[in-house]
Amino acid sequence: MARRPTIKDIARRAGVSESAVSFALNDRPGVSDGTRARVRRVAEELGWHPNSAARALAGERSGAVGLVLARPAHTLGVESFFLQLVSGIQEVLSAGRTALLFQVVDDIDAECALYRRWWAERRVDGVLVVDPRTQDPRPELLARLGLPAVTVGGTGAPGPLSSVWADDARAMARVVDHLHGLGHRRITHIAGLPGLAHTARRIASLRVEAAARGLGPREVHSVVTDYSDAEGAAATRRVLAEPEPPTALVYDNDVMAVAGSAVAAELGIAVPGRLSIVAWDDSALCRVTHPRLTALVRDTAGFGRLAAEELLTVLAGGPPRTREGEQPRLEPRESTAPPPAAY
Amino acid sequence: MARRPTIKDIARRAGVSESAVSFALNDRPGVSDGTRARVRRVAEELGWHPNSAARALAGERSGAVGLVLARPAHTLGVESFFLQLVSGIQEVLSAGRTALLFQVVDDIDAECALYRRWWAERRVDGVLVVDPRTQDPRPELLARLGLPAVTVGGTGAPGPLSSVWADDARAMARVVDHLHGLGHRRITHIAGLPGLAHTARRIASLRVEAAARGLGPREVHSVVTDYSDAEGAAATRRVLAEPEPPTALVYDNDVMAVAGSAVAAELGIAVPGRLSIVAWDDSALCRVTHPRLTALVRDTAGFGRLAAEELLTVLAGGPPRTREGEQPRLEPRESTAPPPAAY
Repeated sequence: MARRPTIKDIARRAGVSESAVSFALNDRPGVSDGTRARVRRVAEELGWHPNSAARALAGERSGAVGLVLARPAHTLGVESFFLQLVSGIQEVLSAGRTALLFQVVDDIDAECALYRRWWAERRVDGVLVVDPRTQDPRPELLARLGLPAVTVGGTGAPGPLSSVWADDARAMARVVDHLHGLGHRRITHIAGLPGLAHTARRIASLRVEAAARGLGPREVHSVVTDYSDAEGAAATRRVLAEPEPPTALVYDNDVMAVAGSAVAAELGIAVPGRLSIVAWDDSALCRVTHPRLTALVRDTAGFGRLAAEELLTVLAGGPPRTREGEQPRLEPRESTAPPPAAY
Repeated sequence: MARRPTIKDIARRAGVSESAVSFALNDRPGVSDGTRARVRRVAEELGWHPNSAARALAGERSGAVGLVLARPAHTLGVESFFLQLVSGIQEVLSAGRTALLFQVVDDIDAECALYRRWWAERRVDGVLVVDPRTQDPRPELLARLGLPAVTVGGTGAPGPLSSVWADDARAMARVVDHLHGLGHRRITHIAGLPGLAHTARRIASLRVEAAARGLGPREVHSVVTDYSDAEGAAATRRVLAEPEPPTALVYDNDVMAVAGSAVAAELGIAVPGRLSIVAWDDSALCRVTHPRLTALVRDTAGFGRLAAEELLTVLAGGPPRTREGEQPRLEPRESTAPPPAAY
């Protein structure tokens, strides 16, 4: 079994004293530039790294940040959003040699308990808070604990924490523009979880955009689901069975859009001939189904990079602020066309 | 900002000395059972947790295990396998209050470098090694470092590390049984990454199963891809354009199977009338597409739980061993039927 290289090993190999090694590696005066360079080269050759526990105990950073996902494990299924977000976060953190502590818990109470424990244990230097809610106990808790944090995906409203957000209202305006421009007047929005801040924002925005075009809640409205393919399919069946069914459906994620598209195929409802479909989040899913789905394309990995950069800024002592992610663009594909009546 | 509760706070609130608190919390003799119980209750009330760095420095565990994923970020797209695996791992680790350090890197060299760093920094107590390869430098490296590890998803062959694995050979036998029983004699396997151990195992197993039924490599064979929807679709186009195209396709993951199904729809090739499709890994994807895909159903979260349990066993001093995950079962759905010639 290998032995971890120690300060003593470096001193012996570099031919200097142990205290010289310590000065050199801790960037303190007392050694020449030549010695400092030699000690560092030897340390690297030997694969030496400072003991993370010793550094943390000395009041330095733990070198890790946390991300908690409060969703039941089974709903994680085909949610590509999180893996892409995490890959973007990792890109930035890895460059700064910061580790990501990732934990899945059942609900927001467990998430709050975990923040308290991580804080008490000095386990992480800060956290990224995902799935902001309309009633959210987390920002206040984290501000009270003094645990640096960045909220990911809120509404851009100022709060006690820094946040990165995407403008869901403008994105919804683009979707309505596209569908209204094609001639659609009866649009149903199959929304995600009702307690999430961005769900509320999308629902409100749809209402505003519809009203601006003289359409009321009978023609244009939202129904909420849990983001799963099962609820997405069930909601699609329900709204397509209405006496005056919508001619266009807007889904809050890719999985539900694909599930809804399959329901239409089963019912013999042609897409886009009789029904247009828009997916909020683009993914490989939207591009591999037939017909290919018109979707809002976002740079989710880029959003993750922005969030991680902002957390590093907070850790460096920056004040709370909000930063907006790149605007999503609507990519029309095969699933949207004029409604039957307009042909 | 909140102040972390200290031993002193607990002593004051419980009305005992600081050393009594220390004895009580460290499970050492010197205090009565009543005092021990009271101290622990107060510690819990105050939200006290031991400083993770102090424990780690005292030679105790860091309380975290690591998982590195060496895949380019963009291929993480719709891979539901990993989120489900991680959710199962988390279930077991959370119960034991162990954190999961998760990192995405570009390639296996970066993964090895990270293991060396984590080991030198005493950052993790052990690691879960995923995506075992046919030529894999990781088991030897980890054994040499003495960093406890469990390989997840190998072939069950004994090695220097503990491993949990699934019997891909028997699973492939089930797939061939099903297709051959329906009358298929020309089967192409759209395999995943060629360097992975389980890809090699599936390819070899398909050859054995075909030979056992008197079929040679002209009728039954494998082509390799990178698991992405793009390569899955491209491979499908290629094999369907052959002079004697296969009547059945077996895909190594759900995403490629769905992509292949969309290619067939585009080409006007009826599934399952003219072409049968089997997906190796079931997911919501296979159930929401139309037609629903026949798939190998595995309990991926359960596999993650098994892996985490095995790592905890290794951390507790258990010897290297191999444990087999639950056998996958084939769930016939709408995408498999007898080939055209058999009608």
